[in-house]
Amino acid sequence: MNFSSKLLENAVEQMSSLPGVGKKTAFRLVLHLLKQDAETIEKFSHSFIALKKDIKYCKHCYNISDNEICEICNNPNRNEKIVCVVEDIRDVIAIENTLQYKGKYHILGGIISPMNGIGPSDINVEALVERVKNQNIEEIILALSATIEGDTTNFYISKKLKDLDVKISIIARGVAIGNELEYVDEVTLGRSIEGRIPYENSFSR
Amino acid sequence: MNFSSKLLENAVEQMSSLPGVGKKTAFRLVLHLLKQDAETIEKFSHSFIALKKDIKYCKHCYNISDNEICEICNNPNRNEKIVCVVEDIRDVIAIENTLQYKGKYHILGGIISPMNGIGPSDINVEALVERVKNQNIEEIILALSATIEGDTTNFYISKKLKDLDVKISIIARGVAIGNELEYVDEVTLGRSIEGRIPYENSFSR
Repeated sequence: MNFSSKLLENAVEQMSSLPGVGKKTAFRLVLHLLKQDAETIEKFSHSFIALKKDIKYCKHCYNISDNEICEICNNPNRNEKIVCVVEDIRDVIAIENTLQYKGKYHILGGIISPMNGIGPSDINVEALVERVKNQNIEEIILALSATIEGDTTNFYISKKLKDLDVKISIIARGVAIGNELEYVDEVTLGRSIEGRIPYENSFSR
Repeated sequence: MNFSSKLLENAVEQMSSLPGVGKKTAFRLVLHLLKQDAETIEKFSHSFIALKKDIKYCKHCYNISDNEICEICNNPNRNEKIVCVVEDIRDVIAIENTLQYKGKYHILGGIISPMNGIGPSDINVEALVERVKNQNIEEIILALSATIEGDTTNFYISKKLKDLDVKISIIARGVAIGNELEYVDEVTLGRSIEGRIPYENSFSR
């Protein structure tokens, strides 16, 4: 696209640096912004600068937080003997939305992925081992994506923790609630048969 | 969504103020930004502030420009006797991309749309009339969207210009190049029969 303005071209280029935003969409979004008043645009822009500048990561669990210790770690009503290991804050929010989990979290900040150059030392595994050693943690729940990277990371973490006195569990994998069996892929279906549980345990508590 | 951080929540809210960006997408985009270094985020954010602060609208045609007069109006190789009337800068870029048009433009900055509270006085029609009166313009090409709003605006402009010595034409409406006839809607097909042209004129010049 040949813009009549360098300023416009630059703004569109910046907008299209966002993942999944192409040039055309970026142009539409920038024109939308340009129609707003200067104050609105200031607010929009400064929210990202302020986020980067002032955001903290919780000292215990590495969750994004406005304070040194995040709200979840600070909440005395949550069971600190159970720690759920997740990839990033999006997973925390997804699990929080289920209203089913009342323990604490540990955010890895990524999963082991040699393809993307992410090794074990790039994620917060050592800190997790330290937590298990120093705190009275009874159970670690591995809640990573059901992908090869997730499995690799699960395996790595379980090896690191195996000599410590902690129970390691993993979230169930199987047929999603509401799914019709004939449309479930073979791997998932196979895994759900392999991982079958006693019927009387299958009612949500 | 219940975020653990007000800063994060605010950034996500700002991002989701963009058209077509929902809360989940906004969250993903903000997390992407957060992974960049501070300088990248500054650049991103300031591009929009700078755009709003320093952008100008061409005095002649109301195109977005870095200067008082835009590149197109300033280009002596373009025919200033033909003026193409469009809704906004996106249409200018679309027409420029065809490489078929060598005249000038007039950007209305909107089209008459009572539903959205946009009346004739909210768009740059008076300025167009002044241009026709004061400059040596021979032809006005109406290139607005083929919608009711576009038609209304075309009609209003044509009334405003009818006593002036200028030819008014409108871009052709019909079957799009490459379209199969059976899939064309009835209105377009009907219009394309009504607006038929001599076969010998149909080869692009």
